Amino acid sequence: MLTKNRLEAFSDGVFAIAITLLVIEIRPPTPAEGESLARALWEQWPHYLGYFLSFLVLGVMWLNHHRIFEPAQRVDGIVLVLNLNLLLWAVLIPFPTAVVADFLREGGDDAETAVALYGGVILLAAIAFTALFAGITREGIVDQLPTPQQVRAARLRFGLGVGVYTVAFVLSWLSPALALAAHGAMAAYYLTEQSSRLNADEVKRSRE
Amino acid sequence: MLTKNRLEAFSDGVFAIAITLLVIEIRPPTPAEGESLARALWEQWPHYLGYFLSFLVLGVMWLNHHRIFEPAQRVDGIVLVLNLNLLLWAVLIPFPTAVVADFLREGGDDAETAVALYGGVILLAAIAFTALFAGITREGIVDQLPTPQQVRAARLRFGLGVGVYTVAFVLSWLSPALALAAHGAMAAYYLTEQSSRLNADEVKRSRE
Amino acid sequence: MLTKNRLEAFSDGVFAIAITLLVIEIRPPTPAEGESLARALWEQWPHYLGYFLSFLVLGVMWLNHHRIFEPAQRVDGIVLVLNLNLLLWAVLIPFPTAVVADFLREGGDDAETAVALYGGVILLAAIAFTALFAGITREGIVDQLPTPQQVRAARLRFGLGVGVYTVAFVLSWLSPALALAAHGAMAAYYLTEQSSRLNADEVKRSRE
Amino acid sequence: MLTKNRLEAFSDGVFAIAITLLVIEIRPPTPAEGESLARALWEQWPHYLGYFLSFLVLGVMWLNHHRIFEPAQRVDGIVLVLNLNLLLWAVLIPFPTAVVADFLREGGDDAETAVALYGGVILLAAIAFTALFAGITREGIVDQLPTPQQVRAARLRFGLGVGVYTVAFVLSWLSPALALAAHGAMAAYYLTEQSSRLNADEVKRSRE
Repeated sequence: MLTKNRLEAFSDGVFAIAITLLVIEIRPPTPAEGESLARALWEQWPHYLGYFLSFLVLGVMWLNHHRIFEPAQRVDGIVLVLNLNLLLWAVLIPFPTAVVADFLREGGDDAETAVALYGGVILLAAIAFTALFAGITREGIVDQLPTPQQVRAARLRFGLGVGVYTVAFVLSWLSPALALAAHGAMAAYYLTEQSSRLNADEVKRSRE
Repeated sequence: MLTKNRLEAFSDGVFAIAITLLVIEIRPPTPAEGESLARALWEQWPHYLGYFLSFLVLGVMWLNHHRIFEPAQRVDGIVLVLNLNLLLWAVLIPFPTAVVADFLREGGDDAETAVALYGGVILLAAIAFTALFAGITREGIVDQLPTPQQVRAARLRFGLGVGVYTVAFVLSWLSPALALAAHGAMAAYYLTEQSSRLNADEVKRSRE
Repeated sequence: MLTKNRLEAFSDGVFAIAITLLVIEIRPPTPAEGESLARALWEQWPHYLGYFLSFLVLGVMWLNHHRIFEPAQRVDGIVLVLNLNLLLWAVLIPFPTAVVADFLREGGDDAETAVALYGGVILLAAIAFTALFAGITREGIVDQLPTPQQVRAARLRFGLGVGVYTVAFVLSWLSPALALAAHGAMAAYYLTEQSSRLNADEVKRSRE
Repeated sequence: MLTKNRLEAFSDGVFAIAITLLVIEIRPPTPAEGESLARALWEQWPHYLGYFLSFLVLGVMWLNHHRIFEPAQRVDGIVLVLNLNLLLWAVLIPFPTAVVADFLREGGDDAETAVALYGGVILLAAIAFTALFAGITREGIVDQLPTPQQVRAARLRFGLGVGVYTVAFVLSWLSPALALAAHGAMAAYYLTEQSSRLNADEVKRSRE
């Protein structure tokens, strides 16, 4: 039997590897004739930005993955397939990150394409998360179905994600910089939200 | 003592790393003079196809690995060697994936060779799975030998795999596209089969 | 609930991957016309030095991470964010390692820049460790706040690290070799200190 | 407290990553003008040989690591440092593997140098294993010191390894092919020996 624990351990491993692989997209620069290393390193700033942003994004995905699996008492084939679908998009993230890093400074159409690719993959990951959440909150997987109120809150949370990521995706063709800023803001928002929730849980637990 | 748990944890780790390493075979493109990034990204489609297909293949292998080890109560040297043999071929998969991605669009002999290499490695992995299954369903490893009926079902399942992969291997020289489609179909079939089995187990368990 | 165990397992995985990825920065050399492989391998010595040094640095970070988390009874959002911040800098280490390996032999400004980059990342990791320690030794995370004496000892230990790393950072522009030696000395010092502490714990435990 | 379990889990992770990273040294070939992919793939045979050999070597190291840690009841600073030293050499193995793969077919001095580098790293790993074994079979680490007979058996086993690897190292300059064959034979021998030991343990256990 594939247990929930095992599925989570496998997913944790995949997230840990994907987040660490981000670093291999940052290569030592080859300074142009007469250019200093300091300047060449500086000109690579989109690589650092991409690393920082995707580290945040994958870190938040890892947190979110835990949160979604929390109520699950067991896993079935549907949960398994939906989880693989999520990992498919999460593991891919180093690729659009490298594309953004390579083409952001070029500006113009290519920068727009690069950021759209990045936003597209993250949007697909957000949709995969929504599907996974729906797959887990089914009878037989959770012992207690979420209350209508919880369902509404979750719909809001996931709908917000998919909505903002769709806007950011479209925004790529208007302003790549703004689109990236939207991704950064979303990751920071989710990180804050997950963090405060952890704190609230702690308070609740310590009062019990 | 090398326990079953430890062997499984090591194998899980190897599968998680191999599936995540698939992404490093997809590199940002270098657009030709005057070519847009969008077009250059599009022309890389065999890389995305390869990623998607091999992600599915390795995901199914991971699932299958669990299933095969389920009845094992302990491991011995034979199981250990057969397991290493399986991992040897599974870990290799990113290499033929990259070869297919690089040569599929060239067509002709080279595309055939690339797909045959891919199919060959997967065929060897399927044979390794069959051997591992035989190695595990031995007295002393499982507490209860499979019934003749179960043996027949397993033979059918593994025989089907090895058979179809042999056909796909030969097919590489006739139609690389069809051979790849066969691999995709097999992975989808196994994923569905493993998923429904998980569900059946759930039903069984919830009735107990 | 994200438990302490889970956060530690994820961090352990990230450290294990980062330390292993160091090897992919050492590539087989391309000997110049008429140059022997032996000579070309020899000329790559900064790559071996970088591998050795960063292996030590990441090994010590992994040890230190355990030590810092030991007294924690639970984790909250602040600990989580501070831990991600630490991992962000730890995972980055293969990059400055590769830069040092590529530019150390060039000498002059570029060698200084390379070593300063290396030292800068390690300094930021040391600051991240200090912040994580402060985040963990809070009421609600530990059951028993450290005594004033322990706080003083910890301040000394972390202050020493941040202080020496700041000096090593500045030293990069005076003598890259000396700055690297300072990093090696610090890693060796921490390894010795952590090791003797493990031994002391053992003695204490065996007396109980 | 760094526990034995934690140290083993970290080491297991490192071995799993190192063994999986071997695949990234096998790159799709770039066929020369008019050369077929099949021929170009064939000409890469030293890469496949290197992959196979190092997979075996790292697999055996992983097994041996377990075996050495079995009797340990706890770990101290000395064990920790000796374990890091072993991992340092094990993680490095993909590098000499790539050098052998790149230079074996060139023959002459460069092939000798490449094989000597490979053999040198494995020799250092064997010495690191011997030191780790000595570090673990100390009072305070194991509950029961090995009997003089066991010590003699272990000395023979480790002495054999270090001895044969020294011979293989020297052999590199006489016949690189023979030296590689010696490495293959040693890995096969250790795999067989570890496997039969697992079986013997099983028999013993099932009789209890």
